[in-house]
Amino acid sequence: MTPSDPAETRPQTATLAEIAREAGVSAPTVSKVLNGRADVAPGTRTRVENLLRAHGYRRRRAEATRSPLIDLVFHELESAWALEVIRGVENVARDAGLSVVLSESAGRLTPGRTWADQVAARRPHGVILVLSGLDESQRALLTSRSVPFVVMDPAGDPGADVPSIGATNWQGGLAATRHLVELGHRRIGAISGPPQMMCSRARVDGYRAALETAGLPVESDLIRTGDFHHDTGYRVGRELLARPDRPTAVFAGNDLQALGLYEAARELGLRIPEDLSVVGFDDLPVARWVGPPLTTVRQPLTEMAEAAARLVLELGRSDNGSAEGPAATRVELATSLVVRSSTGVPPLAGS
Amino acid sequence: MTPSDPAETRPQTATLAEIAREAGVSAPTVSKVLNGRADVAPGTRTRVENLLRAHGYRRRRAEATRSPLIDLVFHELESAWALEVIRGVENVARDAGLSVVLSESAGRLTPGRTWADQVAARRPHGVILVLSGLDESQRALLTSRSVPFVVMDPAGDPGADVPSIGATNWQGGLAATRHLVELGHRRIGAISGPPQMMCSRARVDGYRAALETAGLPVESDLIRTGDFHHDTGYRVGRELLARPDRPTAVFAGNDLQALGLYEAARELGLRIPEDLSVVGFDDLPVARWVGPPLTTVRQPLTEMAEAAARLVLELGRSDNGSAEGPAATRVELATSLVVRSSTGVPPLAGS
Repeated sequence: MTPSDPAETRPQTATLAEIAREAGVSAPTVSKVLNGRADVAPGTRTRVENLLRAHGYRRRRAEATRSPLIDLVFHELESAWALEVIRGVENVARDAGLSVVLSESAGRLTPGRTWADQVAARRPHGVILVLSGLDESQRALLTSRSVPFVVMDPAGDPGADVPSIGATNWQGGLAATRHLVELGHRRIGAISGPPQMMCSRARVDGYRAALETAGLPVESDLIRTGDFHHDTGYRVGRELLARPDRPTAVFAGNDLQALGLYEAARELGLRIPEDLSVVGFDDLPVARWVGPPLTTVRQPLTEMAEAAARLVLELGRSDNGSAEGPAATRVELATSLVVRSSTGVPPLAGS
Repeated sequence: MTPSDPAETRPQTATLAEIAREAGVSAPTVSKVLNGRADVAPGTRTRVENLLRAHGYRRRRAEATRSPLIDLVFHELESAWALEVIRGVENVARDAGLSVVLSESAGRLTPGRTWADQVAARRPHGVILVLSGLDESQRALLTSRSVPFVVMDPAGDPGADVPSIGATNWQGGLAATRHLVELGHRRIGAISGPPQMMCSRARVDGYRAALETAGLPVESDLIRTGDFHHDTGYRVGRELLARPDRPTAVFAGNDLQALGLYEAARELGLRIPEDLSVVGFDDLPVARWVGPPLTTVRQPLTEMAEAAARLVLELGRSDNGSAEGPAATRVELATSLVVRSSTGVPPLAGS
């Protein structure tokens, strides 16, 4: 898990001159291949690369020409949990002697073309994409430059061969909703995140599974679509709570939407948890600070970011030489329910 | 304010060969001087540098060898307002085609030695230090590599020649406390930030000035030392509120300490604002979301970060050629009071 000793990454004993001799080319030609220069005939390049690989040289080349940087790309920096992720990547980068380059794909679900060119030019040790994806040409560009990448908490389905780190979102939605069912709630609403995000779908599916296994009906008009922001939690919360048959509890999808729901409840004169129970998701620092402190599903964001950073560095080290990459390239870290004061038994009228 | 046209930054017409001729040296020697190589005799270097400067070349050199990066260094990434700052720097960097490298000086008030070496090696377009300073050797290192730097919201006294961007902290402390005085409060507490931070001192001095100009006594045991974190706001808040002659209002120094104070009040059964008025400082997004929404002093963090990023890029452009730098290298942006629901008239018993 710790960065390996530099010596350990250079197992080869052959010098460039020896490889040049073996390949029947000049040493400068071997150098060109090592440095990825274009002016080498394809046949020669292949022959030299095979020899370099056999002698464990490719890895050395990749490490030698990489900048001491890790790229961290957010879909957007709006969310308070970005900071938890940054901290995790910083922790691992610092230990590895690397600096973190931060970008935002700014509302687009794949970072812009320019971004990929910049990354290819600076050749970081790896790229971590948070709730963001790469298109085909971007993937090809990074792969051709031996820049490994990992997706954290995939927004869409990242594809079977994309290394990713997530959390057990489905399990979290299940635990949140079971907690409400066990308290006696029967009309339980849910606010999802954006439907194109897999983490959001998984949470709501967990909610459904909890209701179904408890023998409770899943009422589609108690499930509302959000976008993980406070304002939407407020707006959708107003709609849910204004109904004559309003739910006695809501699984808010994430903490920010839960805070929006708090505001909606306050405006309508509903007390939490006496009139309404609320469960969030994430366990941001603010969840402890609001009144009443929020019951929520803890997502280990900093640990997930650390795992993503370690994985991308590992991918970089196993870039060649060995045929296979690290063992697990798709990992889900466990979520856990944190019960605070925003959940309680349902009001008598609702039971 | 917008990045200048590349062509505009290269006003010189002389070629390297012409400068070499004029200086009586070879073109490779001029090249060595341009690239900061050590193997040039001091007299020759001075002669060539003077000619290069006369022809506007130094600037071009600096721009040519800089990485397309801006370094952003935080004292710590704990605080939720780091995100507001990151966003501002990202905005300006994106427009200038630069990427942002993020570091944390992790509890030390000057970033570590290794960090300065890394920055010197990658030669970014500039460095922005947030609540962090540089020691003499770090300054010398960056200066020798023509890497400009700007301090945002200085933690200590940055020295007269250090470019800095701040906010009108004193004015904010004054406005917060005047608001409470005008509501009728007479016993007003204050929680400071860390005493070594100038912004913290300025806020409390503004609080004192408001009391004194209103003819109210400044009671030293109503002023407590904090550290800008939630937990301290809670702990110090408990102390202040447990007194038999507790204050009817508290200027909490920043928003996180205000939220800690909310928790202390909740535990003691004190209602906000009926029993206790609270004013924060910063206006983080969460200030709008808590119950009741927090009256606070808005600090334009994103705008401050944008100003710092623009200033550092400007410093880089005026690095040479022109004798003087940008006009204003010490700027304070205005703070403003945002009145929400956490402040009201004092309880009858306290009037």
